Amino acid sequence: MSELDHDHALNQSINALSDALQSGRFVRMRRLLAGLHPAETAHLLESLPPNERKICWPLINPDLRGEVLSYIGEEVRTDLMTDMDTADLINATEDLDTDDIADILQDLPDHVVHEILRAMDIQHRRRVEAVLAYDEESAGGLMNTDVTTVRTDITLEVVLRYLRMLGELPENTDSLYVVDHNDHYLGTLRLSQVVSRNRSLLVSEVMSHQVDPIPANMTDRDVARRFEKHDLISAPVVDKDNRLLGRITIDDVVDVIRDEAEHSMLSMAGLGEDEDTFATVKRSVHRRSVWLAVNLLTAFLASWVIGLFETTIQKQVALAVLMPIVASMGGIAGSQTLTLVIRSMALGQLNSKNERWLLRKEMLVGATNGLIWATAIAIVTVIWFNSVSLGLLIGTAIVINLVAAALAGVTIPLGLKRIGIDPALSGSVLLTTVTDVVGFMAFLGFAKLFIV
Amino acid sequence: MSELDHDHALNQSINALSDALQSGRFVRMRRLLAGLHPAETAHLLESLPPNERKICWPLINPDLRGEVLSYIGEEVRTDLMTDMDTADLINATEDLDTDDIADILQDLPDHVVHEILRAMDIQHRRRVEAVLAYDEESAGGLMNTDVTTVRTDITLEVVLRYLRMLGELPENTDSLYVVDHNDHYLGTLRLSQVVSRNRSLLVSEVMSHQVDPIPANMTDRDVARRFEKHDLISAPVVDKDNRLLGRITIDDVVDVIRDEAEHSMLSMAGLGEDEDTFATVKRSVHRRSVWLAVNLLTAFLASWVIGLFETTIQKQVALAVLMPIVASMGGIAGSQTLTLVIRSMALGQLNSKNERWLLRKEMLVGATNGLIWATAIAIVTVIWFNSVSLGLLIGTAIVINLVAAALAGVTIPLGLKRIGIDPALSGSVLLTTVTDVVGFMAFLGFAKLFIV
Repeated sequence: MSELDHDHALNQSINALSDALQSGRFVRMRRLLAGLHPAETAHLLESLPPNERKICWPLINPDLRGEVLSYIGEEVRTDLMTDMDTADLINATEDLDTDDIADILQDLPDHVVHEILRAMDIQHRRRVEAVLAYDEESAGGLMNTDVTTVRTDITLEVVLRYLRMLGELPENTDSLYVVDHNDHYLGTLRLSQVVSRNRSLLVSEVMSHQVDPIPANMTDRDVARRFEKHDLISAPVVDKDNRLLGRITIDDVVDVIRDEAEHSMLSMAGLGEDEDTFATVKRSVHRRSVWLAVNLLTAFLASWVIGLFETTIQKQVALAVLMPIVASMGGIAGSQTLTLVIRSMALGQLNSKNERWLLRKEMLVGATNGLIWATAIAIVTVIWFNSVSLGLLIGTAIVINLVAAALAGVTIPLGLKRIGIDPALSGSVLLTTVTDVVGFMAFLGFAKLFIV
Repeated sequence: MSELDHDHALNQSINALSDALQSGRFVRMRRLLAGLHPAETAHLLESLPPNERKICWPLINPDLRGEVLSYIGEEVRTDLMTDMDTADLINATEDLDTDDIADILQDLPDHVVHEILRAMDIQHRRRVEAVLAYDEESAGGLMNTDVTTVRTDITLEVVLRYLRMLGELPENTDSLYVVDHNDHYLGTLRLSQVVSRNRSLLVSEVMSHQVDPIPANMTDRDVARRFEKHDLISAPVVDKDNRLLGRITIDDVVDVIRDEAEHSMLSMAGLGEDEDTFATVKRSVHRRSVWLAVNLLTAFLASWVIGLFETTIQKQVALAVLMPIVASMGGIAGSQTLTLVIRSMALGQLNSKNERWLLRKEMLVGATNGLIWATAIAIVTVIWFNSVSLGLLIGTAIVINLVAAALAGVTIPLGLKRIGIDPALSGSVLLTTVTDVVGFMAFLGFAKLFIV
C-alpha cells in the first residue's frame, strides 16, 4: 500500500469516524479506532474540534492511551489528561518509554505524579525519576534509561551470549555502551560491529570513541544540532562525572528539530509552537488579543506620526493616497532581511565577523532595490498625479525607508538576542514600527519642507 | 567537552580562520581547516561571505571535499562546484554514499555527470544510476543502495557467519533485509534480533513485517511523515514490483523534515529554503525585487482604493491619520489565522469535515477580537479627535476587517492549495490585499456615506 493510499485510507477512516460520531454510533467508532496505529489515533485527535475530541477519547483502548498521548502535542495532551483519573493515568503510562512517561508527568499536578510513581515497581520508578530530575528541554529530559551495557574485558562471543540471555533488546537499539565498574562511560559498541567482527576480539578492541557522550544538561537544541551534524542515530548521555545515565535516540530528536524549525514561523505571527489549531474560541481570542494589543501600539505610533502632518495632508491629499506604499515597501523588504537573519541565527551561522559583512550587504541590497523601485514608483506617481515633485518625493522616501528596513532587519534580531529576548517573537513588531515611522516621517516630513 | 564548549571552540576556530584569511596566512588556514569535521567545515563555509568562501575552498583537503559538499545547502554547493574541474569532482565524490553522490550530480551539467560516472567502477556506477533515475525529491532519490540482504531459509548462525565474512557493514546499518531469489522484499531482520535470539532459529521465524516497504516514487515529504509517525530509523525502498532497491536512513530524512518546516517561514517572506544568507548583493537584489514587485501591486491597489475617497479625506484629515490602524489590525489578525492554517495543512491535519468548523471558529475569533479592539480603538479615537461619530466609524471598520481577515486567512490557503499553488508563497500577499482593500473601503466608504 503506497503512502498516498495509506493517507487516503486514513482520511477515509477520519471521515467515517466523523460520520459515526455525528450519528452517535459509538460501537462503530470504537471499531474504527481499534484499526488505527496509536500515531494515527493521535493525528486524528489533533484534527478534531474540541467537542468531538472529548467524545472520541474515552472510546480509545485504555491500554493504548499512553502511547497515543506520547504522540500528541502538549496543549491538546494536557486537555485530554485533565479528564482522566489517576487509575486511568497509571494504566495508560504503564508500558511507555521512560522519556515519554517523564514528558507526560511534567504536565500533571504534583500529587498525581506522586501517585503514578508510587504505582510503579522500584526499578521503573528510579528510571523515570532519573529523567524527571532534568529539565524537559535538556538532554536528560530527552533521554531513555533503557541502555544495555557491557564491560571492556570480555570477547564479542561473550557479548553475544549475554545478549541472548537478555532475550530482547529495547526498541531502536543500534549500539551497546561500554562502561567500567563505576558506570563511567568508556565507549560505544555498535551492533553492526558485534555481528561482523571476529568473535574472539575483546570489546576494548572493537568499541568506538567516535561519538562524544552528551552531558545531561545540554539543551535539546544543541543535542539536535549535534545529531544533525554527525548523522547520529543514538548517543549516550552522561552526568558531569561521565557516568552513563541513558541514551537519546534520533526519533526523539526529530521532534525537537521540527519544533525548532516551526518555532520561528509561529513566533513571527505571535503564536506558540504547541498552538492547537482546533482550540476553543475563548482560548484563541485570549491568546491572539495579546498580539493584537502589541501591534496596536505600533499602529497608534504610526498614526501619531501621520497626525503631526495633518495640515500638510490637508493641502495635498495625494500624500494620504500614496503614504501606504512607502510604509508597506519598507515593511516587506525589512521582513525579508529579518526572516533571513532569524533563520541564520537559529542555524548558528552568525558571528561577529560576518555580522558586519551581512549588515553592509543588506544595506546595499536595500539601497539598490530602493533605487530600482523608487524609480518605478516615481514614474507611476508622476503620471498619476501629474506632479514631478511628488514623484521625486516618494522616490526619496522609498530609498530612505528600504535602507532603514535593511538596517533594522539586521540589527533588531541581533540586538534582541544580545539582551536575551526571542527575536522571532518580537522582531517583526519592532521592524514594522521602524518602517512605518521612518516611512511616514520621511515622506510627509519632506513634503512639509519642500512641497506644500 | 560540552556542546557549548564545542560550539565555542568552533566559533573560535572560525574567528582564527577569518584572521588568518585577512592576513593571507594560508598555511595557518590549512592547518586550522584540517582540524575540523567535514560537517563543521561545511557550516564554516556557509557562514562565510562569498569572497572568503572562494579563498577557503581550495585549502580544504581534496579527499574530504565531497563529504563537505554533502553537508552544504544546494545554492552554496552549486557555487563551489562551478570552480572545480572534473578530475576534482571525481576525486571528491569517490568515497561518498550513493544518495549523496546522486544529490551532487543533479546540480552538474550532463557532460560532467557522464564523465564522473565513467570514472566509477561498474558496480558503483550502477548504484548511483539507480538513484539518479528517481526524482531528487522522491524516496528513490533519498535512498542508499548499500543494503545487506539475506534469505529466509537460513539460520541466524549462518547469518552471523555471512556477516563476519562481509567484514564491515555500511554506516548506520540497524537492519538486514530479507529477499527471495528475485530480490522481492519479504521482511526486515533487525540486528538487535540477530544478536538476541537463538542462533538455530530461521530468518523466516525472526524477521519482522512491521515496516511497510516504501515505494521508490513516494515523495520525500510522505517518507518523512511515515518516519515520524512510526519512529523509524531505516526503511526498505522497493520498485513497483516490490523488488528491493535500497534503504532510507533517518539522517537523510532529518534534512527533509527541517527543509519542510523551514519552507513555510521562508516562503511567507518570499524566500527559498536554499537561500544563501551570504549571497552576493547582485543575486540578492535580483531575487528580492521579484517579491517587492508583487507586493507593490498590492500597495498600488490599496492606494487606488484610498484615491477613490480623496475628497472625503480632504474634508476630514483625521481619516488619513487613522486609516493605517484599520488596515494593520486586519493584516495582523489575518496573518495569525493564515500561519496557523498553513502549518496545519503542512501537518496534514485539515480535511473537509474540520475545515468548515475551523472557518466558523476563526470568524468567531475575528468577530470577538474585533469587538474588543474596536471598542478600545473607538475610545482612544473619541478622546483624540473629540468625535463620537469618528469613534463609531473606526470601530465598525475594525470589526468588519477582522472578520474579513479571518475569512481570508482560512479560505485563501485552502483555495490556493486546491488550484495547486503553494499557499505559503502567495498566501500572505493575497491576504494583505484583502485586509488593505476591505479595511480602507469600509473605513473611508462609511465615512463618505455617513460622516463627511
